[in-house]
Amino acid sequence: MKKNLVAAGTSLVMMGASSAHAQGIQITPAGTTPTTLGAAQNFSGHVAVDIKAAGDSGRHGSVGMVDFAPGARTAWHTHPVGQLLVITEGTGWVQEEGQPRRGIGAGDVVWIGAGVRHWHGAAQANGMRHLAIAYVKDGRSADWKDLVSDEQYGAR
Amino acid sequence: MKKNLVAAGTSLVMMGASSAHAQGIQITPAGTTPTTLGAAQNFSGHVAVDIKAAGDSGRHGSVGMVDFAPGARTAWHTHPVGQLLVITEGTGWVQEEGQPRRGIGAGDVVWIGAGVRHWHGAAQANGMRHLAIAYVKDGRSADWKDLVSDEQYGAR
Repeated sequence: MKKNLVAAGTSLVMMGASSAHAQGIQITPAGTTPTTLGAAQNFSGHVAVDIKAAGDSGRHGSVGMVDFAPGARTAWHTHPVGQLLVITEGTGWVQEEGQPRRGIGAGDVVWIGAGVRHWHGAAQANGMRHLAIAYVKDGRSADWKDLVSDEQYGAR
Repeated sequence: MKKNLVAAGTSLVMMGASSAHAQGIQITPAGTTPTTLGAAQNFSGHVAVDIKAAGDSGRHGSVGMVDFAPGARTAWHTHPVGQLLVITEGTGWVQEEGQPRRGIGAGDVVWIGAGVRHWHGAAQANGMRHLAIAYVKDGRSADWKDLVSDEQYGAR
């Protein structure tokens, strides 16, 4: 019985992961996929990630809602095809290497081109949430680099 | 002077339209693109559309936030590649032709496969808002059919 329950759970997870690429209409109800925390090697501070759709190396982007606590941010990283951010709440920063950081907030849309080394995250005193749509090449949607130091984060 | 202002305005619009496909980092501030109302031949009721990114026939999906007033809905339509809906607020319906309508609400994710004739919209008594990511083929992300009648909309 327990084995059957585990098998059923695995099937549900697999259905969720593949739902974005099948035919017909698939509804993935709220709460189907557990929220994950941004890994310490790729994020600084508290970052919650809700995956909405798995991407593929064809035309389906990976889609996720990402919630940054105040002061939290990604590591420096690049995207092999590019990423669109739709800021849904709060205020934060995005910085391209070699450029000053730029303020972003709810309603703004940010496009990060292929291969651009950058980071994004919340403001020091306010959280920030964005939907992220990243396109996939060779099975990857991001290449992660060094963490953003407090000095880099705070630089004006 | 006036001519220069018009030329500058045109350049800004062109930058906005192409921002999703250029390199570097492009920020499109909230309020850059006017909200449009869903056209009467493709939508029933009051529907407000905010375009977040223009798609292309490569790997960039078209992205828009769509706000349906209570009772409002799309016409029957199909997508040449498919469309992902991330429901951000409210409750509504999605129906595939030949199947019963299915309830959807905030936090649900809906994948509509290529060529599936369907409609989606708000509940009778509650509005519904979703982010829509549609993939483009031969310059089109949707093929529109007949409006959804009140009888079709209300059928259980």
